This record gives sequence, C-alpha cells and structure tokens, in this order.
Amino acid sequence: MSEMDAHTFSTWLEEQPGPVLVPVGALEQHGPHLPMGTDAVLSTSIATAVARRTRGLVAQPFTYGYKSQQKSGGGNHLRGTTSLDAAALIALTRSVTVSLLKQDVRRIVFVNGHFENYQFLYEGVDLALDELGIGSGDDRSVLLLSYWDYVSEPTLAQVYPDGFPGWAIEHGGVLETSLMLHLEPSLVSLDRAIQHPAASLPRFDRLPVVAGRTPDSGCLSAPAGSDADKGRLLFDQVVEDLSADITTEFGLDQAEHPEGA
Amino acid sequence: MSEMDAHTFSTWLEEQPGPVLVPVGALEQHGPHLPMGTDAVLSTSIATAVARRTRGLVAQPFTYGYKSQQKSGGGNHLRGTTSLDAAALIALTRSVTVSLLKQDVRRIVFVNGHFENYQFLYEGVDLALDELGIGSGDDRSVLLLSYWDYVSEPTLAQVYPDGFPGWAIEHGGVLETSLMLHLEPSLVSLDRAIQHPAASLPRFDRLPVVAGRTPDSGCLSAPAGSDADKGRLLFDQVVEDLSADITTEFGLDQAEHPEGA
Amino acid sequence: MSEMDAHTFSTWLEEQPGPVLVPVGALEQHGPHLPMGTDAVLSTSIATAVARRTRGLVAQPFTYGYKSQQKSGGGNHLRGTTSLDAAALIALTRSVTVSLLKQDVRRIVFVNGHFENYQFLYEGVDLALDELGIGSGDDRSVLLLSYWDYVSEPTLAQVYPDGFPGWAIEHGGVLETSLMLHLEPSLVSLDRAIQHPAASLPRFDRLPVVAGRTPDSGCLSAPAGSDADKGRLLFDQVVEDLSADITTEFGLDQAEHPEGA
Amino acid sequence: MSEMDAHTFSTWLEEQPGPVLVPVGALEQHGPHLPMGTDAVLSTSIATAVARRTRGLVAQPFTYGYKSQQKSGGGNHLRGTTSLDAAALIALTRSVTVSLLKQDVRRIVFVNGHFENYQFLYEGVDLALDELGIGSGDDRSVLLLSYWDYVSEPTLAQVYPDGFPGWAIEHGGVLETSLMLHLEPSLVSLDRAIQHPAASLPRFDRLPVVAGRTPDSGCLSAPAGSDADKGRLLFDQVVEDLSADITTEFGLDQAEHPEGA
Amino acid sequence: MSEMDAHTFSTWLEEQPGPVLVPVGALEQHGPHLPMGTDAVLSTSIATAVARRTRGLVAQPFTYGYKSQQKSGGGNHLRGTTSLDAAALIALTRSVTVSLLKQDVRRIVFVNGHFENYQFLYEGVDLALDELGIGSGDDRSVLLLSYWDYVSEPTLAQVYPDGFPGWAIEHGGVLETSLMLHLEPSLVSLDRAIQHPAASLPRFDRLPVVAGRTPDSGCLSAPAGSDADKGRLLFDQVVEDLSADITTEFGLDQAEHPEGA
Amino acid sequence: MSEMDAHTFSTWLEEQPGPVLVPVGALEQHGPHLPMGTDAVLSTSIATAVARRTRGLVAQPFTYGYKSQQKSGGGNHLRGTTSLDAAALIALTRSVTVSLLKQDVRRIVFVNGHFENYQFLYEGVDLALDELGIGSGDDRSVLLLSYWDYVSEPTLAQVYPDGFPGWAIEHGGVLETSLMLHLEPSLVSLDRAIQHPAASLPRFDRLPVVAGRTPDSGCLSAPAGSDADKGRLLFDQVVEDLSADITTEFGLDQAEHPEGA
Repeated sequence: MSEMDAHTFSTWLEEQPGPVLVPVGALEQHGPHLPMGTDAVLSTSIATAVARRTRGLVAQPFTYGYKSQQKSGGGNHLRGTTSLDAAALIALTRSVTVSLLKQDVRRIVFVNGHFENYQFLYEGVDLALDELGIGSGDDRSVLLLSYWDYVSEPTLAQVYPDGFPGWAIEHGGVLETSLMLHLEPSLVSLDRAIQHPAASLPRFDRLPVVAGRTPDSGCLSAPAGSDADKGRLLFDQVVEDLSADITTEFGLDQAEHPEGA
Repeated sequence: MSEMDAHTFSTWLEEQPGPVLVPVGALEQHGPHLPMGTDAVLSTSIATAVARRTRGLVAQPFTYGYKSQQKSGGGNHLRGTTSLDAAALIALTRSVTVSLLKQDVRRIVFVNGHFENYQFLYEGVDLALDELGIGSGDDRSVLLLSYWDYVSEPTLAQVYPDGFPGWAIEHGGVLETSLMLHLEPSLVSLDRAIQHPAASLPRFDRLPVVAGRTPDSGCLSAPAGSDADKGRLLFDQVVEDLSADITTEFGLDQAEHPEGA
Repeated sequence: MSEMDAHTFSTWLEEQPGPVLVPVGALEQHGPHLPMGTDAVLSTSIATAVARRTRGLVAQPFTYGYKSQQKSGGGNHLRGTTSLDAAALIALTRSVTVSLLKQDVRRIVFVNGHFENYQFLYEGVDLALDELGIGSGDDRSVLLLSYWDYVSEPTLAQVYPDGFPGWAIEHGGVLETSLMLHLEPSLVSLDRAIQHPAASLPRFDRLPVVAGRTPDSGCLSAPAGSDADKGRLLFDQVVEDLSADITTEFGLDQAEHPEGA
Repeated sequence: MSEMDAHTFSTWLEEQPGPVLVPVGALEQHGPHLPMGTDAVLSTSIATAVARRTRGLVAQPFTYGYKSQQKSGGGNHLRGTTSLDAAALIALTRSVTVSLLKQDVRRIVFVNGHFENYQFLYEGVDLALDELGIGSGDDRSVLLLSYWDYVSEPTLAQVYPDGFPGWAIEHGGVLETSLMLHLEPSLVSLDRAIQHPAASLPRFDRLPVVAGRTPDSGCLSAPAGSDADKGRLLFDQVVEDLSADITTEFGLDQAEHPEGA
Repeated sequence: MSEMDAHTFSTWLEEQPGPVLVPVGALEQHGPHLPMGTDAVLSTSIATAVARRTRGLVAQPFTYGYKSQQKSGGGNHLRGTTSLDAAALIALTRSVTVSLLKQDVRRIVFVNGHFENYQFLYEGVDLALDELGIGSGDDRSVLLLSYWDYVSEPTLAQVYPDGFPGWAIEHGGVLETSLMLHLEPSLVSLDRAIQHPAASLPRFDRLPVVAGRTPDSGCLSAPAGSDADKGRLLFDQVVEDLSADITTEFGLDQAEHPEGA
Repeated sequence: MSEMDAHTFSTWLEEQPGPVLVPVGALEQHGPHLPMGTDAVLSTSIATAVARRTRGLVAQPFTYGYKSQQKSGGGNHLRGTTSLDAAALIALTRSVTVSLLKQDVRRIVFVNGHFENYQFLYEGVDLALDELGIGSGDDRSVLLLSYWDYVSEPTLAQVYPDGFPGWAIEHGGVLETSLMLHLEPSLVSLDRAIQHPAASLPRFDRLPVVAGRTPDSGCLSAPAGSDADKGRLLFDQVVEDLSADITTEFGLDQAEHPEGA
C-alpha cells in the first residue's frame, strides 16, 4: 500500500477483491546469524505472497513488537531487542484497525511473526470493533493469526526429521533460519551460527529475568540443519494454506493466475 | 491472607518463609456441567496446596479474567462469561504486585487458571517491577505460570489414554472436569454434560466471532472419560512439581511436614 | 454466580426476577482482631442475604479496593493493606459492568463495603453506561451504595448507646466488629483487640502520610462494646431496608418466601 | 501566582514562607440564584484569605470539576453543569502537583469547593508523589481538604438555627448562598431563589439518573435563611481555623500582620 | 459563563445566537516584565471581545497549558512554568468538549494563547466528536485557532517596523507585551524588561534541554518597542477578523450593536 | 538496524561512534502522483544519508503517523490516510525511546517527515526521559526535528523561484515531489498530477471537517515546477546541514569518508 497512490487505492477499495494484510514483526535479537528485523521480514514476505494469491494489498508492517519473553525470545534484557509495551502495541493495533475500517476496508488480516505479540494484537482489534460498533454478522471482519500455526504436520516432519522440539524454543532456530535462507539469504550468516544444545528453561516465567538462563547466543535452539529448501517448503505450504483459508473464509473469487505465487 | 489479621501477617513477613501466591481465574461459561467460577476454583485449590508445602500464603484470587477467545474458551459473546479488557487486567495485576512489594513481600507467584490471561498478567508484573526499579539481581521477584504447564507427560498419558488432543480445546474438557470432580464434586453435574465431538476451529481468530463455530454447549471438547481419580492424579502431580520448583527457585527451606499435602 | 453453570444462568437471565449484586470490599488491615478480608466478607454476606430476598444473584466480589486513606482506614502505608489505584478500580468496575450488561443483565447493584472505593465505582459505572449508550429512561440500570448508608437512626442508637462517633473513624470499630461477630465469629479475635481512645486526626489529608498519626493497632476506634447481637441487629436491618429499596426501585415481584431471611 | 512574574516567584521560592494554595471548584448549575462558577469563587476566596495569613501564594484555580452526582449536586444531566471525567481530573491534579514540586515548591494545599472532586484530587496527588519518589519523612508535602470540613459546630449552630440538614443536600443552600452574599453579592439573585422543601433522595445512587428526582430548581435545599452575616461568620471562622492548621502543620512563622484578614 | 446562573444559561441555549468560546492559556514564565498568567489573560480578553460581537458566551479559561518547549517558550525547566502533560490536556479538552455538547451547545470555539497547546487541543476535540458520533455534516462543530494566526500582514508591518522575526521567538516579546500594555497595563513592569538580542536556538529540539540556551530572562526576544498603541492595533484587528470569521462560518446573525467592541 | 544482527549491534554500541536515527513518516494520501508512504520514504532516505555521514545507524521507521489535519495534509477523512491517534503515537515513541536507552544507546535522533506528528513525538520522548530519570546534564539525549526545518533560505529561493508559499500548504507539492523525483522516481506519476491553484483554507481548524474545502486531488498545492534537480538540491543541503548539526551537537569525530563507513 505504501507505494500505491491514494487515488488508485480508492479505486481498489470500490471493488475490494481481497483483504488488506498487515504484517507484524519485531526488532529483536535473533542470535549472531540472523538480522534483528527477521520477524517483520518473514511476516511481510508471507503477507506479500498471500496478497498476490488473494488479490489483497499489504499495508506497512508493524516493525516493533511486544517485549521479548525469556521462554520464547530470550528475554527483553538483551541488546538488539527494541520493544513496545502492551499499551503501545494495543493502541497501535487499535488505531490502524479503526483507521482502515473507516476508509471502508472490509477485510483485514493481521499476519503475526513475533510470538509475544498475539494477545495484544487481539485486544487492539477487539477494541477497534467495539469502538465502531461492529458485532456479529457485520460484513466487516478481521482475521488474526501467527504464520507458524499454518505449518502442517507433514511439513514439520520434513523440516525436523529428528522430531519437532516445540515452538517454544524455535527462536533463531531451524524454522526462522530456513525461511530467511529461502527469502533473504544475504541477511543470514550461517557461519556465525553458534552450536549449542537447546536451552532448558523452567516451566514458569520469572521477572526480573535471571539473565544467565538465556544462552549467550540469544538463540533458544541451534539452527543446525537449516537450509533454503526447507525454507521454500515452509514458505510455500504456509502461503498456500493461508491463501486458501482467506479465500474460503471471505468467499473471495479465486485469483486465476496469481502472479508470482 | 484474607482470613488472617494484619498483625499476624506482619509477623509472617518478618520471617517470610515462603511466597505469596495469587491465584488467577475467570468468571466464564464452562458448559452445562461445570460452574462459571471453575478457573478460580482450580487455581485457588492448587495455590492453597502449594502454599502448605512451601510455607506460603494465598492472596485473594483474581476471579475475573480476560475476554474468552473462541479457540480457547468458546468466545466472549457467550452468556455466563463476564470478562475484563486488557487495560483492567493489566492495571489490576500491576496494582496488586506493587502493593505487595511495597509491604516487603519478596516472593510472589501468580498461579494462572485461565488461558487468555497470561500475557496481561505478564505485562502487569513487568510494569510493577519497572515502577519500583526492580531489575536483574534484585532479591525480590515474581513467578508466573499456568498450572497446566506443570502437567507431566506421564500424567497426560494416563489422563488421555487415547492421546492428548492439545490444550487448545481443553475447555470444559477432561482436565478441568476431572480436577473439579476431585476438588469440588458437588459443583459438577456430569449428567448435564453434552456429548459431542471436539470442536474444529480454524487456525486463525476471526473478530467479530462467527458464533456458530462454538458448539451450543460452550465446550470445545466433551468431558467424557473424566473422573475424580484422574483429577487427583493431575492435582497431586502438579502441586508436587510446582512446589518443588518454587522451593528450589527461591532457595526455601523444605517444609518438613507439609500439612494436608 | 460462580457456582452456577452458564446454561442455568442463561435460563435465569430470560426471566431475570431480580438483580445481579456485586459485593465490593478490600484487602486491608483491620487491626489485630479482624481479618484483612473483612470488607469483602461483610459486603458479600449482605449481598447474599439481599439476593435471597430479591431473587437476585451474587457475582464474584471485588476483593481488592482503593488505597486506604488515613482518615478512614489508617493509611495505605500499613502492612496488610493491598490496594488498587484509581485506574485499576475504575477499569475493573467498567469492564465488569459492561460485560454483565452485554449478557442482557438489566439490573446491577454494587454493594460497597470499603469507604474509599465509592467514587471510583461510580466512575466505572458511569463510563460503562456511556460506552453502551445507556441514558435516561433506559430499562437497564445500576444501583450503587455503601451498606452503612442503610444503618438507620434507631439502629445506631442501639449500637452506640453513648452516641455515634461518626463513620469517619469506624474502621475496625464497633460496627465492623459486631457484624463479623454475628457473621464469621471464628475470624474475630476479640482478645487481641487493643483498647485505646479513638484516633484524633486532622481535618485535612496529608500526603505523604505522617505515619505516627495512625494508632499502632491500625484501628481508628476501639471495638469495645461490640457483640454478635448488635451485629445481628445491624445486619438484619440493613438487609431488610436494602431489599425493600431494591424491590421498590426495580418494581420487582415480592419474593414470597425468602429463603434464609 | 498568575499575576506575579516568574522572577519574583523564583525569589519567593528561595524563602518560601508559606504554601502554594490551589483552589478547586466546578462549573456547575447552582439553581437560579447562584452563578455556575460558585464553587471556584468560594474556594478561591478562602484560599486567598488563607494565603494572606500564611504568607502563601494562590495558584490558578481548577474551574472545572468532576461530574455532578445527583445526591450531592443534582446530577450531571443538568444544563449548566460542565464536568470532567475521573481521568481528566486525576491527570490535571497529577500534572500540576508534579510541576509545582519540580519547581521546588515544598508545601501545597488543595482547597476543594466541589464535593465530588475529593477522591480524584487525592489520587492525583498520590500519583504525583509516587512519580517523584516522595515518601514518608520527606520535607515536601501536600494537604488536601474541603473547606466545609472546617465549619465548626458552633458556627453550624448559628447558621442553621433549626438544625443542620447535612452536607449532602447543601447544594445551592444556605451555606453556599450566605458565603456568596458575603463575598460576591452582585452574583446572587435571591429574588430568583425558588422555595421548596429539601429534596428527598434515596440512599443509593442510580445510573442513569432518574431525572425527576432532582427538583426543577437544581437545588437540593432552599437557600431560605441565607444572609451575608452568616456568610461572613462562616468565611471568617473557616479561614481562621484553616490558617491555624496550616501554620501549625508546616511549622510556619506566624504572619504578624496578615493583610486584609 | 461562570458568573451566569444555570437557568439563564439554559434559556440562552434555546436560542443560542452565538458560540461558546473557551480561552486557553498557560501558567508560564514570561520574563521579568510579564505575569505568569499572560497567555490566559490574552486569550480570555480576545474571547470576551469576540463573544460580545458574536453574541457568544465565554467559558472558564484553561489556565494551565502544555509543557513549555525551549524553542517557543524557553523550556519547561524554568521556575514559574507550571505545566500539564499531553494526557492531562487532551483529557481536559475532551471532557469539556463532550460536556458542552451534551448540554446542546452547538458551536464551540477554542481560542488558544499558548503555542505548545495546539495539537493536544486538536486531539481532545477530535476524540470528543468521535465519542459522540459527530461526523461530517453534523450541525454541531468546533473551531480551534491560535489568536496570532489572525494577525494580518499590515498589522505585522506596523508592529514590527524593522521586520517580523517570526512567531517562534515571540515569547515575552513585542506582541505579548504590547497586548498586555493595552489590556492589563498594571501587570506589566516594562522597567524590569531585560534588553538582549533575540535568542539563537538550533533547528532541532533537544531533550533534556541544555538550559544555557535559554537567556536568563526567560524571554526569547526583547520587548523593546512594545507599546499600548501597538497592543490596541493588534487586539482590535484580531478581534474584528476573528469575529467576522465566526459570524460567517456559523451563519450567525450579525450582532447589530456589539456592546463594548 | 533491522538488517544487522544483534551481536554486531552490541559491538557497535560499545564504541557508539554516532547516533541511532529513527525516521518518522505516515501512511497518508499525497494526491494522485505520489505514493501514500511518501513521508516515510523521505525521512528514511534523509536519515540513511545522515547516518552515513555521522557513523550512525537507522532504526526501523515509524510508518504510521498522527491524523492528517486539513490545513496541513488535507484531512483525516480522505481515503488513503491511515492514522494513529495521539495516545498511540505517544506510546510508540515512548516505548521505542525507553527501549533504545535501556540498551545503552546514548544518542537518538528522530527525523520527522509528517507535519502533524511533531508534538506527539516530543511528548513521547519527554515521558521516556522522565521514566528513566534522565535530566539536564545527562550524557544521554534525544534530538527531534522535522527535515524541512533544515531547508535553507538559499535553497528555498532556488526551489521556489516565484516565492515560497509557506510550509502549511506544501503537501504533495513541489518540495515532496521534487525529493521523490530525486530519490524514488519510479514511485512518482507526474502525468497524474492535477493542476489547480493552491488551496485557500481558513485560519482556523474546524472539526468535523468541511470536506469540500480540500481539493479533490488531496493536494494543497500543485507540484508544478517539481524536478529531480530541485530534489537533489534539497536533499543534499538538508543532509549536509543536519549531519553537521548532529556532529557538532554530539561532539562526534568527523567521519572522514562518509558513505558506507
């Protein structure tokens, strides 16, 4: 959307053949081998591919996310992690949702790429709908998802041949690294990836964090075994399933010749 | 704590042999067979048993929780679900945490029993510590956990002999029903439990919710197979593991003869 | 309500023969002879008895209240007092009120038991009605009261035969102690009650508080002269008058055989 | 303060012989015989006289107050009542308190003239002190009072020879009218005062208000019996007692020749 | 409005021949020769004169404003500057706007006299309209302006014969001083005015401020050349143009014999 | 920063030879010839060039801005304008500033490209410093500026040979269009630029807006006369002056070989 002029956008809105997708990420340390902007790169890439298949548009990504938590992202105390508090992320989500709906956007999809964001995005959307009086049965609606919820069992089995260790410690691990190797290989420095066993974190969160529980690398599991093929597999499968869901859910006409899919 | 007088509490604080535990629940529909206050009953029961083993105290539970979400609790549109928005739950958590810490409580444990609450409790605790300038290395700290994160693999295998369906649809299901049958059987009406297959919900959240996706019962899975023995097993194992974690984490003296454990 | 299942509650809502009562208290030091949860015990007991007489339901009490002020509760600096700030209490009240009204509850009664709460409860209710667009003439409404406003002159004369000293210093005094002796005698330790003259506090509030102005006991007046009979008298008269007011105000059918009244 | 230049103020701050007084009022209907700005006129007049006796300064008054409540001011639905919500009044109080303290003002006195404001002023002051880390024992402090709390029993007996009806319904009544007749007689239209018995309001607050419960005049009691002599008596006694309290509380040197007292 | 009684106001509202004007100022250092309340004096004087010409009413001024910024007011660190943060000023504006509109005021004009306030007043008004659902085409509306935007080129040429230095450094300078000499000469001490060249401030704002960049006087330019005639010229021209704009914009009947204009 | 990994960033922080620059823009209609993301493109391009000359880093831009106002951006009612309210923008700025400072970033520069943002960025920064207790004399500081404040008089004379019409109506006009033609010509469609005289807007803001006052194009002045050479002139001069200011203000070593250092 940011590269489109407003008059063209207004024309698009008249027909509105697909959703407006809002990618959400974070500016967060991802170990020595991945860039700090990884989460927004991934959610934006996925949103862009889905937009092509669903005749949608991609809005500017949210490039700052909620505080990194130790059990999912290493912790907010680490350098390289620049975060929003809950009030900021909720307000940002609410404002953008309200503002899009007031322009007559009828279908919005938030594509989340940073674990900790989810509940605050949800609250922002819910407050926006409340503010505009949009309730059950309204033809305007918002979808919200984290892209990894679309990774299928068969894909998992291929990506993690030795067994999937759980999303909890997949931060800077095989999923993100493989996707980056497929999408933005120039931003990945596999040679800098540190090898260490997966972090073993307690079942509780403790605040303030005990810094020593996060490996020095900042990764919760090693990216060993990542490659661009796995990244392509993950990307294509997620994009296909998510596009299908959106098309069905919104009753969209199928885009016959999706460009670039 | 609510039944203790302030002078006795002040004396307890001098020695402070254990943590102050704050149970967190919700007032939420749980189908026709469980009471609306189920989440607070369970977290309070667990916190009480843990307090006995760790020489801790139990503060008043939070009996209202964050909005029920369709994929974890059926949705906030259902009668019987009385919820807080994010600002309220964060503010409540922040105020109580600050207020306890200002009284010289050094160890606080939030025991969560309602899925949707977690991130807002986390934010409330984090803001409280920020407000008081408590950072890494401080001898005051707060633990936060959801009790089901303490259910072990062996226990799961016993409770779900046909395979664990995932926490996502465990709302009014076997876990909660069994625990209630063990702890508060008079509040359970198994004869009113409706039999239906587990709900099949999409991978995204949609707002406003499509009400028809939640089964009429309000349950996401049937409680068939629940019994008090499973409840006791779950309860005892969670209480034991959580007590052990707290004892170790805080370097507490072991309570030699835990009463009633 | 917390012990009722949601389907039963939904059926009750169809007929809705009485109000939903929300007791409000605090977790606050009440001297050495009363438990910290006194305010919620009293408001919950009164709300429960009123509910029986008005065919109403009792929602979960608010067990944390606004900061204790020196002239009415000894001050917020005292151990044993765990408080909410204004934003938290307003948000809690607003959320719960909105959430009940959205479920089609048409009559809500807040029964307050902690002096300092009142204005914040009022604001929370007012914001909730504004949010839902409920104005004059709507058939949905909310009552708000502190239970001691229902103590009649004749009752006062009997409870304080030497003259009523004013509500201002009735904190841990004869009113609360007598009510507790009637309702929860096992939680009262009259032998621990300290005898001292009523506190003499200035006509202004000073912040930060001068701690020495609050007696060490935390009580603003001694409970001397408290007994269970006075408690019963107070309780019965307040419950009767409040029930009558609610019945008249809402045009309820009289409950013919109130249970337990 | 508003008529003083900043350099003179800075010099005054060096010595700081007295407090900064902040009068608080409201813009609220006061019946047909009193101006809408009555509350700020009265609190400002009192603060000004007290400042003369305590070598203090008077800051700009807060001329808008919290929502009028039916039982104390007739209700917020009445024309002529322009109100702040809680968040606004708390934020205003907090900002002004913080800002004065940051300029090295060490003693602040809020002189309240509108019943409904009190708790929100209290919260604003408390948050300001928290923000600046001012706790017990600090040499900076804030006093907060409503001026009618300084009316003594003997004065009451003279002003209400037939017995004092209670502050609750003293809105546009004898106290305010007499004070205005003493201080700003040109703003009083006694000939427009409507005669009616005191309003009889229930012991609860109801929202939304039942408009008919407030007399058409907007007054809760008639001003019959008001006169300037009573006003002078009230004014002089309150100013004297409040000045004495401030002098003692802050350990001020007695102003030897108070101007204009 | 504050000197008018509510019944008279209600009658005025029926016809509503003009707008309600809300003057906005600040309590801010203005150098050694001008009082701290200058901004509110000026905006109130202008609003009062405009009200006479447009049959409007003047509401109580906002006498506290947003933080002084170094490039427009010398900085918020200076003694004599008592400021609101953004949340307070937005909330104040929102509450007053909502409250006036709910009383059926249809035309409101905010007359700003403190540079830094503008955007926060704008937000407060916008939120108020949103809250009440007032959108394009509604017959209720709000105007917002800073009075210096009404100073015409010819007037500027007369007031600054050597060339206008820009509004940015006009703080305590010729404009404000001349207006005060015309309107409130007794509050001006020209003999205390310090002579120094206009401050030379960088093109950026820096926080925290480098205090030394603000001249000791607190003025950004000297008031040399100020006189009451220039003040009268400025005042009359602004009042005339603003009155004309309001009359045209709101389609008011021309006031035939404006009193005192 | 988003393309850098966290370990490299941490190393950069040790030396910290320059500032972290945060570009700020908006997603706002800019007429038919410019993309909606223009403001962020321009501020990011400028920040990037300045970073090269000052050995700084560029953080992720803020791509959503405060509500478009009619007199500076055509108004917030126009399609293509997706905006934040004040609370969201203040919270975003505060969170990011706090988070950067906590990572030991000592010098931050906000480079604003959307007129309406300025005061809210200022408040966000001020709150962040307050929260961290950073006051005068601290070696950490934040600069804030709008890039057009750096356009010099000689440059203006060259860009607007017929006289500069004022920043107020420079929205989608010669400045922005020329800069885009220099920096991102592929995003400009000069053939779609509508020719019309500059909009003539009143001296006040009116809310709700009178939509007809904004030209259909959404531009307040025509881009006629824009070209890439003017864009280069503007860009180079602003970048040079801003870099010089930052270098001097922060006492940085001069980067000897700017670009890519």
